[in-house]
Amino acid sequence: MGCSWMKKEGPEGDIVLGTRVRLARNFAKLPFPATANRDQAKQVLQKGELIAEKLGELTDVKFYRLAEVDKLEREVMMEKHLISPAHTENTASKGLILSLNEDISIMINEEDHLRIQVLFPGLQLRETWGLANKVDDLVESVVDYAFSPNIGYLTACPTNVGTGMRGSVMLHLPGLARIQQLSKVLTSISQFGLVVRGLYGEGSKSFGNIYQISNQVSLGYSETDVLEHLAKVTAQIISSERQARQYLIEKQQRIYSEDQIFRAYGLLTNARTMTTQEALELLSSVRLGIDLELIKDLNKNLLKELMVEIRAAHLQKIMGQSLPHEERDRLRASLIRDRLRQKTTDDS
Amino acid sequence: MGCSWMKKEGPEGDIVLGTRVRLARNFAKLPFPATANRDQAKQVLQKGELIAEKLGELTDVKFYRLAEVDKLEREVMMEKHLISPAHTENTASKGLILSLNEDISIMINEEDHLRIQVLFPGLQLRETWGLANKVDDLVESVVDYAFSPNIGYLTACPTNVGTGMRGSVMLHLPGLARIQQLSKVLTSISQFGLVVRGLYGEGSKSFGNIYQISNQVSLGYSETDVLEHLAKVTAQIISSERQARQYLIEKQQRIYSEDQIFRAYGLLTNARTMTTQEALELLSSVRLGIDLELIKDLNKNLLKELMVEIRAAHLQKIMGQSLPHEERDRLRASLIRDRLRQKTTDDS
Repeated sequence: MGCSWMKKEGPEGDIVLGTRVRLARNFAKLPFPATANRDQAKQVLQKGELIAEKLGELTDVKFYRLAEVDKLEREVMMEKHLISPAHTENTASKGLILSLNEDISIMINEEDHLRIQVLFPGLQLRETWGLANKVDDLVESVVDYAFSPNIGYLTACPTNVGTGMRGSVMLHLPGLARIQQLSKVLTSISQFGLVVRGLYGEGSKSFGNIYQISNQVSLGYSETDVLEHLAKVTAQIISSERQARQYLIEKQQRIYSEDQIFRAYGLLTNARTMTTQEALELLSSVRLGIDLELIKDLNKNLLKELMVEIRAAHLQKIMGQSLPHEERDRLRASLIRDRLRQKTTDDS
Repeated sequence: MGCSWMKKEGPEGDIVLGTRVRLARNFAKLPFPATANRDQAKQVLQKGELIAEKLGELTDVKFYRLAEVDKLEREVMMEKHLISPAHTENTASKGLILSLNEDISIMINEEDHLRIQVLFPGLQLRETWGLANKVDDLVESVVDYAFSPNIGYLTACPTNVGTGMRGSVMLHLPGLARIQQLSKVLTSISQFGLVVRGLYGEGSKSFGNIYQISNQVSLGYSETDVLEHLAKVTAQIISSERQARQYLIEKQQRIYSEDQIFRAYGLLTNARTMTTQEALELLSSVRLGIDLELIKDLNKNLLKELMVEIRAAHLQKIMGQSLPHEERDRLRASLIRDRLRQKTTDDS
């Protein structure tokens, strides 16, 4: 279970948790999943198997028929950002191709026939795009894409027509949140033609000051133009966030920042029951404390891992069964205590 | 600097922090302090010195003219419950006799010429009264009291006429507070002719679930009758508090009690700035955790000590200077962290 975006620290990793590029692709001469009959959907899934074989030339991958994967495992995949929430349900002809280190995932029969996704730690728009492009080329060497020379790739939803590409960066912005500048910054982002989402995509709320920023437009601009624009805006946000963090450790503010950060640490290492939302808010504070070098003996990535591992499906997978929410809250608190304690000892 | 009531654990010490008996006494043929002239007040103070000498036969005592004691030190005395808030001000002819272990203190020229106080840890009404009575006899062997055979000791305020005695117990009632039964219990206390006060006497607010309960009447009943009545009501409250605590660690409740207690511990051991009020509330939770044997490696009395030592004057005495409240809050948090850490290590 690799999940390299969670376990590794990438460039600008103090602010950018991960970079994602996804390509929406459809096969020629087959209807989009929403209107395909059972037989056509099956054909799509079979092509997926073929693609998985081909990708074996590039890296070790595994092919899943999601109907054969149990519900809890599908939810775990979703919590790790490997598949979308929609892809965990109505699994009849749904499939997934997943590389061993989990940086490549291809959903089959989601909204489009294929959703190719590459996910890297830190800010790596060029590298992420490079690998996505390579995967795309390999796929295209064994199947025919629905493609129009005038407008580009054809997709189920018009917003994806053109490049079919969406680039996203996942940002941790506790500094801007603390100096009350976050909503101003997020509003300005949409004026640059970009979209802000919570941790789990469209419609999801943001907890723990984590936001995903991605391009809105996929028609009329090349992939590299779009990603360059995203990179520029991201650089701006990074700079604002760094300034905010600097302010937080200046003379007057420092004691209050320290207080808030260490209180969060004290609660995480002592609480006996905790909701996901509270845990994310507190983990955000502790991660900020590490980035500001106020907390010194914790592994940065531990926090990125915990942000995912404290989710409901992950917790239930540990116990091998479905749990009522009171027991999840209890298990979550216990897991966090163990992990924070363990790491403190390891590094000291 | 003894202060045995703080440093020792007495009988029923999980609920009763301390027992106090004080006797209001006045000298014959001298007006009460409020109406005495400078010369008369001086005579009273001189008699105080004589009394101190006599008490030397019983135990080591020190005589203070409060005008010669600096303000900070007087406030420290007040925070330790050795003198009243009023006795820290307008110190011209005010005096204090204090035993080395600080269980006997006699204020001179407070509201009455003498306020004899004995303060013991835990529930020790009989013992406390015994020592107060012995001190009273010694004093009477060298001075003449204002006494009427019909009504008893004469005092500045009519509420103290008669025995001049007030017995008090200082109770920690976090269990009743948590199950929302505290106000019901406190209301019933006044129906028994007793008075409930906060930690620092009349008009002071209660923080950290600490209450002082004492008799209202000093006329028409003997000292032992009054103290027996107080003992009975205290036994009732102790029993209710024990039941409440038992409920808190029963099946359903236990996890929430543990959670609250350990969160308090986490905040106390990590916060960088803290008000007195917050510290008292959190210390109350931690002390409950020790009493419920949920927290095992902390010294009980540490909490009783900290409840006093985190007060403004104590903190300023450590630094040897007056401090703005932001710095006191910071020093308070730091002191608490150090003390809790130290004790955890000592016992492990």
